[in-house]
Formats: sequence, C-alpha cells, structure tokens
Amino acid sequence: MYKNRNNRKEVSLENIIYGRNSVLELLKAGKRTVNKLMVSQTARGSIITEIINLAKQKGVAVHTVPPEKFDRFSEQSQGIAVEVSPTEYVELEDLIKQSKASPKALLVILDGIEDPHNLGAIIRNCVAFGADGVIIPKWRAAGVNETVSKASAGAVEHISISKVTNINQAVDLLKENNFWIAGAENGGQSLEHADLPFPLALIIGSEGFGLHSLTRKHCDFLISIPQKNTISSLNASCACSVILYEIYKKRK
Amino acid sequence: MYKNRNNRKEVSLENIIYGRNSVLELLKAGKRTVNKLMVSQTARGSIITEIINLAKQKGVAVHTVPPEKFDRFSEQSQGIAVEVSPTEYVELEDLIKQSKASPKALLVILDGIEDPHNLGAIIRNCVAFGADGVIIPKWRAAGVNETVSKASAGAVEHISISKVTNINQAVDLLKENNFWIAGAENGGQSLEHADLPFPLALIIGSEGFGLHSLTRKHCDFLISIPQKNTISSLNASCACSVILYEIYKKRK
Repeated sequence: MYKNRNNRKEVSLENIIYGRNSVLELLKAGKRTVNKLMVSQTARGSIITEIINLAKQKGVAVHTVPPEKFDRFSEQSQGIAVEVSPTEYVELEDLIKQSKASPKALLVILDGIEDPHNLGAIIRNCVAFGADGVIIPKWRAAGVNETVSKASAGAVEHISISKVTNINQAVDLLKENNFWIAGAENGGQSLEHADLPFPLALIIGSEGFGLHSLTRKHCDFLISIPQKNTISSLNASCACSVILYEIYKKRK
Repeated sequence: MYKNRNNRKEVSLENIIYGRNSVLELLKAGKRTVNKLMVSQTARGSIITEIINLAKQKGVAVHTVPPEKFDRFSEQSQGIAVEVSPTEYVELEDLIKQSKASPKALLVILDGIEDPHNLGAIIRNCVAFGADGVIIPKWRAAGVNETVSKASAGAVEHISISKVTNINQAVDLLKENNFWIAGAENGGQSLEHADLPFPLALIIGSEGFGLHSLTRKHCDFLISIPQKNTISSLNASCACSVILYEIYKKRK
C-alpha cells in the first residue's frame, strides 16, 4: 500500500489486474473477490462494453477514471483494470482431493520457474489442455503476481494453484496418494510412444537447469520430447505445451 | 556506435551476443563473423573453458576484461560476450531455393510477432523441430536483435531467416514455388488428424490478434490445436511449438 499526493490510501499494484482479456476472464470465472472495476474515460470497444455489463451484472462497482490514472500501470493496461483480493492459493491436500475426482488426474509441478512470462504461459497451457492443478514452490521461483496473471491472459483464474515449501515433500505426498511422478527431461522415454499412467504428476524443471537432481530421483520415469535437432532445447513453456498437448490426447 | 568516457569507439549493443549458451552455440555454428570474444576476469566453469578453447581454435581473439565491462549488458551476460557482425538475413528467393532441397520442406512465417522473447522462443522451436527457415516482416514486428538471440538460446545461429517487406507478396512467391500455405487458427481443421501436404509454409499470427484477415485469405487451409478449454488460448510461441512438434512427427 502506498499513499498518493492527496494522501488517500491506494491499493498496491499486486492487487490490480489489467488488460482487456485478463479482466474479462477474471470476471467470467468469478473465483476472485473483485473490489472494483476501473475504466479509462478514453477506453472504447465491444470488449470494454462487455466487461462493464458483466461487472454491473455481478454487482461490481464501476469507476470511470481519467486516462492518466493508468500511467502507473504497464502500457498494456489497455485502459481497463480491476482491484482484486490477492491470489488465493489452494492447500496441497485440497488440490489432491479435488484432482482425484478426475478419472485421469493430471497435476503439473513447476520445479523453479523464475520468469513470470514463462509461468504465465505455462498456466495458459495447463488450462488449455485441461490439467487439474499447478504446484509451485514458495522459494526461488516466480509467484502468481500481476505480470504472471497478464502473461497467462487470465488463465490463472481458471485453475487451482498450490504453493508449497518443499517440492520433494509435495512429491512424497502425491506418491502416498497413488500419483505417478513423471519428470520432463531430455533422454527420457519418448513422449510419442510413452504409455502414461494416471493419476499423473508431471514435473517441469527450471529454465536454465532443468530438474533438480534430488527431484529427478523422486521421479518414477522421465519423458522427453522427440526433436530433430538437440543443439537447441525448447523454452520451458514451449516444452510444457508440447507435453501437455500429447498427454491431453492420451487422456481424451 | 557510441563513444565511452575515454572517447574510444565502442561497438553498438546490437552487435553483442552474451550469455554462455548463446555464445557457445554461435561459435559452434560458425555462421557469423565473430570479431572478438570478451570474458570477465571472474567468469569460471567448464562452459567458459569450452568457449575459450573453441574461440582459440577458430582464430577468434580472446580478451579478458574486468567484470565492470559487463555492467552495460544485461545481468544475463554471465560474464561472457562476443562482438559479431550484424544478423545476416537471407533473401527470400534464396531461402526458397535452399528449402526445396529438403524432401518435405517446411518454412515458418511469422505474421507480426512483436515480443522479442516470443520470437526467440519460436526460433528455438523451429530449430528443434527442423524447420528449413523462418520468414519475418520488416515492419511492425520484432527483428532479430540481441534480446531475441538470447531468448533463442543461440538458435538464431542455426536457421536461415528472411526479412520481407510484405508477407502477402512473400506468400504469393511461395505459392508460385508450389508451397502449400497453412494458417494456425482456432476453428481450423484439427492438427491431430490433418493430412499435411509438402512443401509447406506455416503462418503463425501475432500475439494479440492472430492472423491478419488478408493473410488468412491467402491460406490454402487453417489448422488448429485441439484443446480441452478454449477459454484460454495458447501463447504464440507455445502454439507454434505444438504445431511444429506434430508436423515434425508427420515429416519423419
């Protein structure tokens, strides 16, 4: 929280979600408590109208504000923003319980993704390909802030995310709950022909270093993406996308 | 070019490639003229040694410099950088000629990717899945600068890139050369069952807006990625990754 020139309290940027798609998805999902909608006086277009109508319908206060108000946000605010309660993470135990309702449960564990754009893109992948939840570590990794929310194009609103102190302990708990643990790593069995067991937890390593060696030891098996050239590895979010696509086809 | 405090000429940042993987891949590929290698006095490790040995072997001058010299680069320089000649783009005619040597030629056309991180990730995908080249527009899109090179983890050194004034004219030239034109768009035929003809040029739209309507009209067909949830689309580089993966499997 900081105070502006008029000494009124303003909400911290962490609680602001901006951008047309992000705001629209957030309102549609209805999972987060929205305190108010802010629309720039100069914002126009059918999506803006749709957002305003949806907000009114959901009883969210709509504030029309001068465009300068948006200067403190990113240029990508597109003249529209909502103030929300902070991201609500789900307890791991609850996430496991929820997922097990799915006949072929799939959880995605991120072993140290540091780039918020990658984290956002990965969460988009998880929603698009129907994963049941995402597990991220509390330390040395990106948390779900407004950059991640924007990069996810609002997808963070459509999936349960659990933040854990220790990935390896989380993996142990998943194993106790009959989850198979797969690690994404070059040299593993080819994704194309892999016979994947469910419930499954897929671990994606960090951008620069892949899986931590201790995490790798906790995996039941490793899967890798067939590539023509291994001189170049894939970006973490792209690798995740390909693996989730293939798993989605097998789950159908 | 700019002058530093001592009034010596320094090379513009655009001609500097930094980061261990990027520098290593660049030296390995040997496609770019490398003027010199700069290594921080404090840089250590087996990759640094490998890079220095490779540079010496290729007759590249190695300069050991104080770590402060790297302050002007990104924090991701990792204490190693090379000064190179600017990116050498390939003429479209030459790219077409080269590609047609491939039995199932595949070119990737980027219809306005603006984020350099996305462009870098897409070029990584293209190299990993064996595309024969990339076509980017000259205007309103990211060019191949050092951010792109870094985001591509050096992959820009391993593929031919052509920069064209007009994407639609480029598509016309590709059609004259018997290329099939596929556009990536939701609602197209499913990638999973698509029977793809070659030589093929795949068009990936821009991050926010997908294919331009004129470009879409130039396509022979549209392909889309099967997804569980369409509330969330994929990030452009992730979508490209999945499509290239599936095409790679069909080309094998």
